[in-house]
Amino acid sequence: MSFDRLWAELAPIGRSDDGGYHRYTWAGADGDARAWFAESAAARGLDVRTDRNGNLWAWWGVPGPGAVATGSHLDSVPDGGAFDGPLGVVTALAAVDELRSRGFTPSRPLAVGVFVEEEGGRFGVPCLGSRLATGEIDPARARALTDAAGITWADAMAAAGPDPDGIGPDPDLIGMFDLFVELHVEQGRALADTAHPVGVASSIWPHGRWRMDFTGRADHAGTTRLVDRSDPMLPLAHTILAARALAQSHDARATVAKAHITPNGTNAIPSLVSAWLDARAADQSALAAVVEGVREAAERAAHDHGVTVAVAAESTTPLVEFSHDLRDRLAATVSDRVPESAGPVPLLPTGAGHDAGVLSAHVPTAMMYVRNPTGVSHSPMEWADPKDCHAGVTALADVLADLLAEPGRAV
Amino acid sequence: MSFDRLWAELAPIGRSDDGGYHRYTWAGADGDARAWFAESAAARGLDVRTDRNGNLWAWWGVPGPGAVATGSHLDSVPDGGAFDGPLGVVTALAAVDELRSRGFTPSRPLAVGVFVEEEGGRFGVPCLGSRLATGEIDPARARALTDAAGITWADAMAAAGPDPDGIGPDPDLIGMFDLFVELHVEQGRALADTAHPVGVASSIWPHGRWRMDFTGRADHAGTTRLVDRSDPMLPLAHTILAARALAQSHDARATVAKAHITPNGTNAIPSLVSAWLDARAADQSALAAVVEGVREAAERAAHDHGVTVAVAAESTTPLVEFSHDLRDRLAATVSDRVPESAGPVPLLPTGAGHDAGVLSAHVPTAMMYVRNPTGVSHSPMEWADPKDCHAGVTALADVLADLLAEPGRAV
Repeated sequence: MSFDRLWAELAPIGRSDDGGYHRYTWAGADGDARAWFAESAAARGLDVRTDRNGNLWAWWGVPGPGAVATGSHLDSVPDGGAFDGPLGVVTALAAVDELRSRGFTPSRPLAVGVFVEEEGGRFGVPCLGSRLATGEIDPARARALTDAAGITWADAMAAAGPDPDGIGPDPDLIGMFDLFVELHVEQGRALADTAHPVGVASSIWPHGRWRMDFTGRADHAGTTRLVDRSDPMLPLAHTILAARALAQSHDARATVAKAHITPNGTNAIPSLVSAWLDARAADQSALAAVVEGVREAAERAAHDHGVTVAVAAESTTPLVEFSHDLRDRLAATVSDRVPESAGPVPLLPTGAGHDAGVLSAHVPTAMMYVRNPTGVSHSPMEWADPKDCHAGVTALADVLADLLAEPGRAV
Repeated sequence: MSFDRLWAELAPIGRSDDGGYHRYTWAGADGDARAWFAESAAARGLDVRTDRNGNLWAWWGVPGPGAVATGSHLDSVPDGGAFDGPLGVVTALAAVDELRSRGFTPSRPLAVGVFVEEEGGRFGVPCLGSRLATGEIDPARARALTDAAGITWADAMAAAGPDPDGIGPDPDLIGMFDLFVELHVEQGRALADTAHPVGVASSIWPHGRWRMDFTGRADHAGTTRLVDRSDPMLPLAHTILAARALAQSHDARATVAKAHITPNGTNAIPSLVSAWLDARAADQSALAAVVEGVREAAERAAHDHGVTVAVAAESTTPLVEFSHDLRDRLAATVSDRVPESAGPVPLLPTGAGHDAGVLSAHVPTAMMYVRNPTGVSHSPMEWADPKDCHAGVTALADVLADLLAEPGRAV
């Protein structure tokens, strides 16, 4: 299966010695991965184009309205795994090979996409490529986003080639898509104990990122009396614990996994600690309760320690309920390869955001998941068995064959 | 007074736009500050030498036994203030000018020193220059110390010029010193409400730095159930709060002001969080109680969250009781300039470590403090009034005149 060769070519790009991936938008390994995609697609006779926001599209057939789109992303979280993103891109190219080897002729164009900055690993806002294309983020705000070194999106993009002045809503592109399907590695163990290598997504929990800036006063850790301190590490600690407790009581998820401490010296009480809250819940009211609770806890603890705190949403994504028609059509197609004894194809909700979630407000969209026996994600330990990856290629090929067999709405 | 010109020359070096200092050993601004010292000393006809550990010594008179030494350091904590270190160096050069203008002729040599890496701001171990010279740290360990970018002391030192193979105990140098006196900005407000611009040190609290590595498991913050997590941020938070509570109950100081989070991504539960404890107390048993309490709290919280923790001392400094003879002699000299109504010159203990503390185990040593009206330290807000700085120059000149008037022990 061509999947194995494509996977082996892509796997070393951006992988560190300990197995973790470091592919950050517009930087070295990301550029190598994009070049690999463009070459691999061109080698298949696909027409590769870069859209105004830097997303890549490889077209089978003439680019235009009525298209089916699929794909995912190639960027990683810091020290991420091999599958999150790349599995959806590699299976898409392999599915094209599979359809051709079946002698299949599409009745409408197919676009295989690679979205930029899906993880927000460099510039902080996830799904930036799809948010820009669908007009869900102000291009001026996107241009001004900075990475940890203070480099703006605009400067990083310009250095990598594409013109940052051109970014923004792309209705001509989005308007060409009748349907979007994203295949992704599962980020949990719902499939692990079933006979199903592939499941179908039902929904994406509402979720978001909030930045909390705790401003204290720089001082000497050895000489400053406790009562004279305004130490922002103390409200940070209270906030980390409050987020956990609130997530527990609302059956939600709330995590503080990122912080910048200024100046970050052993004997220097910080003047500023910035920390990020990642929160997700099954419905909007539970999410709001968690975020409000964390905000209140942060404000109370800050007040107790002579520190000020400012909390601001960096990105929020409402509940995504994927197209029921498309979801059921995928599930029906996928179930054809599974013995009846396996039971129905699982329909899975997820706490993770995806470009498919962003697109779903604009285009009928669905997702399918390939089984992950560890359940671990955003880590070198995330995994999918090669056999299950092959099942993912077959399932995606079956789904695309079904969707591409009929002419597009707009044709 | 020559102090003002020297101060004005040194002040811009390594100062950022917002007033904070960034002088890190062997890096750009540190090299500029060292060059400024060498030129300023040479312009006074002092004989400037670099010792085997990279400390600078400007000699008035022929270098040799029986000397009086003074000085401080020019490196800063990240985003530090203008006075911590530089005040002791600039007042020493200005005191030489002052003694000459008085027509004073020393009966023994004077060495004005600049110690490297006093703050440990780049390589983590404070007072590294004086620890190396007195044999209180293994040179092989020092060579292998790394900065945040992974650059070793050996490589950074070699790039700056001095040969790192030569570092280590320097008994020839230390043996030349009969006495050492360090002038420093006060790091508290004990002098602020008195009529004394200058005080004398009594002791340095026992203190140290401990590194705590919390090892968890990388995972996706959106998809991993709370019960499946090994999130090292949670025991970190408990440990920060425990350190504060223990410091309070032991009338001590304990601070967690520095942490490295791996990978530090918003939606990536960390695989590793390293944090540093800075702890100080009036006596050794109180310090041990605080540190043991923090260790127990860290281990308990780590266990509760499926995380492992390793705690290791990075540097520890026992109680320093400065030479009573020398201390009283300084106080008597300093009191000559203060009206009797001001009361006796304050004798001040401190929670801050200094090269004087390291040297005091090898050479009779004393310290004097210049008043700091804000009490703030390790911050752009640390301050001493110019009038008080001038009083510091006069006091140091008086003290040196007293000490240099008699021939050295070893002469």
